[in-house]
Amino acid sequence: MADQKNVTILGATGAVGQQMMQCLEERDFPVGELRLLASARSAGAIIAWNGRLVRVEEATPDSFAGADIVLGAADNPVAEALLPHAVAAGACVVDNSSAFRLDPDVPLVIPEINPQDVALNQGIIANPNCATIIGLVCVAPLAAAAGVTRIICSTYQAASGAGLPGMEELQTENQAIVEGMPMPKPRAFAYQLAYNLIPQIGGFDGAGYTSEEMKMQNEGRKIMHDPNLRVNCTCVRVPVARSHSESITVELERPLTPAEAREILAAAPGVKVVDDPGTQQYPMPLETTDQDLVYVGRIREDLSAAPGTHGLTFWCCGDQIRKGAATNAVQIAELLLDL
Amino acid sequence: MADQKNVTILGATGAVGQQMMQCLEERDFPVGELRLLASARSAGAIIAWNGRLVRVEEATPDSFAGADIVLGAADNPVAEALLPHAVAAGACVVDNSSAFRLDPDVPLVIPEINPQDVALNQGIIANPNCATIIGLVCVAPLAAAAGVTRIICSTYQAASGAGLPGMEELQTENQAIVEGMPMPKPRAFAYQLAYNLIPQIGGFDGAGYTSEEMKMQNEGRKIMHDPNLRVNCTCVRVPVARSHSESITVELERPLTPAEAREILAAAPGVKVVDDPGTQQYPMPLETTDQDLVYVGRIREDLSAAPGTHGLTFWCCGDQIRKGAATNAVQIAELLLDL
Repeated sequence: MADQKNVTILGATGAVGQQMMQCLEERDFPVGELRLLASARSAGAIIAWNGRLVRVEEATPDSFAGADIVLGAADNPVAEALLPHAVAAGACVVDNSSAFRLDPDVPLVIPEINPQDVALNQGIIANPNCATIIGLVCVAPLAAAAGVTRIICSTYQAASGAGLPGMEELQTENQAIVEGMPMPKPRAFAYQLAYNLIPQIGGFDGAGYTSEEMKMQNEGRKIMHDPNLRVNCTCVRVPVARSHSESITVELERPLTPAEAREILAAAPGVKVVDDPGTQQYPMPLETTDQDLVYVGRIREDLSAAPGTHGLTFWCCGDQIRKGAATNAVQIAELLLDL
Repeated sequence: MADQKNVTILGATGAVGQQMMQCLEERDFPVGELRLLASARSAGAIIAWNGRLVRVEEATPDSFAGADIVLGAADNPVAEALLPHAVAAGACVVDNSSAFRLDPDVPLVIPEINPQDVALNQGIIANPNCATIIGLVCVAPLAAAAGVTRIICSTYQAASGAGLPGMEELQTENQAIVEGMPMPKPRAFAYQLAYNLIPQIGGFDGAGYTSEEMKMQNEGRKIMHDPNLRVNCTCVRVPVARSHSESITVELERPLTPAEAREILAAAPGVKVVDDPGTQQYPMPLETTDQDLVYVGRIREDLSAAPGTHGLTFWCCGDQIRKGAATNAVQIAELLLDL
């Protein structure tokens, strides 16, 4: 067993921070001291973890003394303000915010795809965007086998992308509808999400894309080491609790039959093929809720591919809080143990 | 004003049949006698329409004597069994089932796109699939301006696609969740729809596509008079009541900027451009519920288009029961008045 590591979680009381704690325990991560950092509002709370009781502390620049590994589950401004202090204190940071993802000095890692990049870290390793992780664990094995030049992706993203407040808001709205009460004013989302779809996640750029939509291309190019990868993404919030789904079409350099793709994905890490139309077996977000694996199915030829070109279409679902965030971060921390 | 026509609705007590009645009244259709046909179970019910009380009759082969126009809102087996009798009785049929859509003797019409095809009818005109109508009213104006060779579409389809039972099931499931009661066994859908997504609408073919997914290509080719149109569609049921949404990428023969596309769509019939990212204005299914127009927005360049090719991406929403079914059928009936 590896030496024990002192682990600090920044943003420990949010949905991702809480899941990180659970993943550390489930995966038997060799945790020495566990420190939980959050905003002043949450400081003082006592959280049970793996037989210990841990007091939540207010996160400050001085919070990281003695930490070996810091798992970041805070928003960009907090990450930017505090995590450099963690690095200065000698910790290695795995950060789930988007603040450092495109920094050339920061590896951006999906352990199933580019684990080797962990070794290049200079103190911070970034955890990719949730929709990017869930889509790419399915795309990357196909790319390795047949070359992927283009991804067209439409997402169906769960309320958990906005954290616990997002999940609670969806529930509150559904309750208002069922009980015939007035609809509360949305706070976590721009509009009512219950019985609705919101085709905006993040802010818009000048070309009409949202920040969330650009992540799959920008992060995908970095993770897959392919600066020419072309990605067209449409990100949509749907009234689902915590599992993201994606409809993906890929263009391939070399032909790959659906049967071959199924075989490749069945052998790929982090992925479970659920693809039997005859018995109505396909991935659904309820099935992947609280699961670490990304389920992939509906694998079929892209009927619209131009003559002489090759394409596949598929559908995948993965838990946004687990593989889309906490599990991936803890997997990266596991890679650090072997450095 | 046109002469009055005797109108018969087959399947009058379903969601689409009820909406057809409302559309006839709203659009001031010149209805002489109105007959309402349904299964034996619903026969005898009295339904108020435009100041009249109309008794629902059991649909039989003899139900169509004296009808000028029959609006079909029944399932395929009923449509196939009964509508030929309506034609034999001298009526002109506008049928919303998929039974006759690909019959070469049956025009398949979206009035905004191919109204002229109505004149070719030999007694039956087919109303296209709901997702096909909602997507193509946006695609066709772009095709007229710049040539569309390929459509990649992911749908977000409402519960109403399974009729009133589908909408009721979604509500019952949400109620069970809010009240902490056991989840009832799904009947309208294969799986729980509340807080879930079901990536199957219709049955599967040997290539892994569902019947719903193939409709956009097969019906699109016929409606747009383009046998070479290539369509790749992924159809997904979402927990929304009655408005379908679609994420669409089109490949164009000639370049079209998003601004040009916006101008073309703003001038197109049946479509409303809702596309102002700066003020978070974009189509959402709640906004198009019980509206006849298809809202289109998120219009932007396809970043993944290969060099030298041209593509646009957009998002559209339309009421499944209205423009996706009843309104389109009544619009076709209006075209019949002018023949």
